[in-house]
Amino acid sequence: MATPEFTARTLRRLLNSGVLSRAERLLAKMPPADVAPLLSDLTQDEIRTVIELLFRQRRAARVLRELPLEMLPQIFEAITDQRIAEVIARLEIDDLLELVEFIPEERRGEVLARLPAPRREELMKAELYPESSAGRVMTTRFVALDEKMTAQEAIDSIRSIGEENESILYLYVVDEQRALRGVVPIRRLVAAPPGRPVGQLMIREPVCVQADAHQEEVADVVRRYDLLAVPVVDVDNRMLGVITVDDVIDVITEEATQDMYHLAGLSEEDRVFSPAHTSIRKRLPWMLINLATCFLAAWVVGLFERTIEQVVALAVFMPVVAGMAGNGGTQSLTVITRAIALGELEFSSGVRAALKELAVGVAVGVTTGLASAGIALYWNGSAVLGVALFLAMVVSMAVSGLMGAAVPLCLKALRQDPALGSGVIVTTFTDVFAFFSFLGIATLLLDRAAGG
Amino acid sequence: MATPEFTARTLRRLLNSGVLSRAERLLAKMPPADVAPLLSDLTQDEIRTVIELLFRQRRAARVLRELPLEMLPQIFEAITDQRIAEVIARLEIDDLLELVEFIPEERRGEVLARLPAPRREELMKAELYPESSAGRVMTTRFVALDEKMTAQEAIDSIRSIGEENESILYLYVVDEQRALRGVVPIRRLVAAPPGRPVGQLMIREPVCVQADAHQEEVADVVRRYDLLAVPVVDVDNRMLGVITVDDVIDVITEEATQDMYHLAGLSEEDRVFSPAHTSIRKRLPWMLINLATCFLAAWVVGLFERTIEQVVALAVFMPVVAGMAGNGGTQSLTVITRAIALGELEFSSGVRAALKELAVGVAVGVTTGLASAGIALYWNGSAVLGVALFLAMVVSMAVSGLMGAAVPLCLKALRQDPALGSGVIVTTFTDVFAFFSFLGIATLLLDRAAGG
Repeated sequence: MATPEFTARTLRRLLNSGVLSRAERLLAKMPPADVAPLLSDLTQDEIRTVIELLFRQRRAARVLRELPLEMLPQIFEAITDQRIAEVIARLEIDDLLELVEFIPEERRGEVLARLPAPRREELMKAELYPESSAGRVMTTRFVALDEKMTAQEAIDSIRSIGEENESILYLYVVDEQRALRGVVPIRRLVAAPPGRPVGQLMIREPVCVQADAHQEEVADVVRRYDLLAVPVVDVDNRMLGVITVDDVIDVITEEATQDMYHLAGLSEEDRVFSPAHTSIRKRLPWMLINLATCFLAAWVVGLFERTIEQVVALAVFMPVVAGMAGNGGTQSLTVITRAIALGELEFSSGVRAALKELAVGVAVGVTTGLASAGIALYWNGSAVLGVALFLAMVVSMAVSGLMGAAVPLCLKALRQDPALGSGVIVTTFTDVFAFFSFLGIATLLLDRAAGG
Repeated sequence: MATPEFTARTLRRLLNSGVLSRAERLLAKMPPADVAPLLSDLTQDEIRTVIELLFRQRRAARVLRELPLEMLPQIFEAITDQRIAEVIARLEIDDLLELVEFIPEERRGEVLARLPAPRREELMKAELYPESSAGRVMTTRFVALDEKMTAQEAIDSIRSIGEENESILYLYVVDEQRALRGVVPIRRLVAAPPGRPVGQLMIREPVCVQADAHQEEVADVVRRYDLLAVPVVDVDNRMLGVITVDDVIDVITEEATQDMYHLAGLSEEDRVFSPAHTSIRKRLPWMLINLATCFLAAWVVGLFERTIEQVVALAVFMPVVAGMAGNGGTQSLTVITRAIALGELEFSSGVRAALKELAVGVAVGVTTGLASAGIALYWNGSAVLGVALFLAMVVSMAVSGLMGAAVPLCLKALRQDPALGSGVIVTTFTDVFAFFSFLGIATLLLDRAAGG
């Protein structure tokens, strides 16, 4: 098979030498997910041509869908409003909803005006669901059956949908009010006698989610019960749509990225392929907050300038206490935010988890504190320094373990994202506390030594 | 619906009052994924009883499968070797393989000896595949068809499997050598005329993976092409097994956890519900490495003890440079490791990504450096300090951006896990470099001021 680099070079050559028919054939052979990365290497002109070729093959929408959302603005720049409208009109409603947000704001109105009216209405309806809710991830295409229909009638209704049936895994049995009664896996239809009513084949009280449930909850349900699709209902249990497992995989991936990004103080739009100016704009606010917290730590150190003046070696060992406490805090924070994300706290409890992190902090603090004190003693010869280092390590590792667990748990209890901000809060706190305990204990010991 | 806490209390009450028949009915009503968390709250005796009740319902294996693997040793402690063998004998081979590793080593031989011989052989065969490879995640149960079979014959072969057909989504067409020829989605069978040969219904050249491919690669393929299952083949394209999307979701989740854990220097076995002594044992080695790197940073600061003696304020501002550089490095590291994990570098390139992180580091360094210099000047009044702070911030943020990108990219090029160790390498480097640049520049400036 040709490597992606080779394909990219070939495509560019064909585009630039004007042999569009061969470029078209090359594209036609590739799955949409393999075409998408090629776009990132093309000029605006080349992108425009490729989109035209794909459009003729009725595959432009599917290729756009495979792009990381954050790359879309670059692609949209190369295409006219009319073409964008024609392309995105073919998308499923959940994909349409996602893509529309990445059309530059000043063009969005114009593009939407060019969408077919029914699609525009569908979009407006979907936009009423809260951000990141099940209602926004679901597709509204599904096969609804009456429970008195026979297996054969159900099969006929699948046939009548034609090509699209490829994505059908379950059929949904609803009553006159469109309330969900049961689910028939398509596999069961295969094995059933043709005359059997679907009401006898269906799984009753199927797992379902509310339209306003958070997408994370949907992912949890699918992961927990190993589902391939989950029906979405309104408060009256009326069937609204379906979320399929491929969308759930996207949600799981996105939520993991979000957690990792939030822990590092990053915005999701700041991706490896984002232009540098986007990354700078997104990172600066967090970095300025971080700067403020660093100065808070500096201020704490400043309180002890006198002590440092007496014993400059304190400045030398400051990074050890802060570095270790920071690391310990990050470890606890990582264990707890991940446990929250995966619902693992049902195998433990918040309080138990926080106490455990505290205990681990103490144990690691005692061990590494003893080692540090030994090294400091050997290096510097000052008993006061060694004792201060040991005590400060124990205390600050204990506190950082506790805080690393408590901060995300509290954020969760307050119904906030446990990852967002907790990185900054925990590192600030551990830094400040590490410096305060180390320099504070040293000052006390030195005062006593001087007094005695 | 009853809350999990309420259910747990009810179950304990029923177990302790000896009304086992009611406990059994309670358990029978719950899906395995909901029973699993209850086990974490029970005593050894209670666990033993519950496993017996579940065993009678033939559901013990499915409940164990829903437990986080790291919790299994606690559960196994309560059960006899014979019972463990009877329970795990019912598992699919991929689950069996995973669970066996969590049986305490001293009991493993005994448990395996009690497994039925065919299962033991199957297990030994599966263990030949490399760690985390497709061969270990696949199930060997699938329906193989000859391409001359008709749709009706295919349907009959599904019926003959009976209850297990619930998990069948695709049928696999193989030739006389069992080489994979094509895939028939079960949905297509539904719509096909009964007499049509499956050779005419199948998708030719289907996406498949090699048995020794890494599970991450399998997850990429499934995510990229939105598959529900992927066939696993050997080097001669012979069909060996199938990996279904629910296992892929587990792989995706596990790999994300691994990346987050590795960045923080954590071992995967160190979970929220692990006993404290396990967490301590797992964290200590990393923390001792970290301690060494902290002392390296301390040693660099020690080189400048003289300068700090002259200007104690340097000690005060040290945490600012180190804190900001550390954060910048972590941000770059997070963006790049996540991009590697998601295959997003196909939308950029390693060199381009590293240069961008460098550029972002410079830009953020200049901005926050100016702000820091201003604050330092206002606070301390020393121009030397302000200039040193500004220059050190720019240089060390630039370097930390570059290192945050380069370290995981280099690890990947060396075919190592890009997340493992890169956290420690990057923070060590940024700390050392931040202290060295800040104190070094300050020393140069002070020497010049003293000389001039």
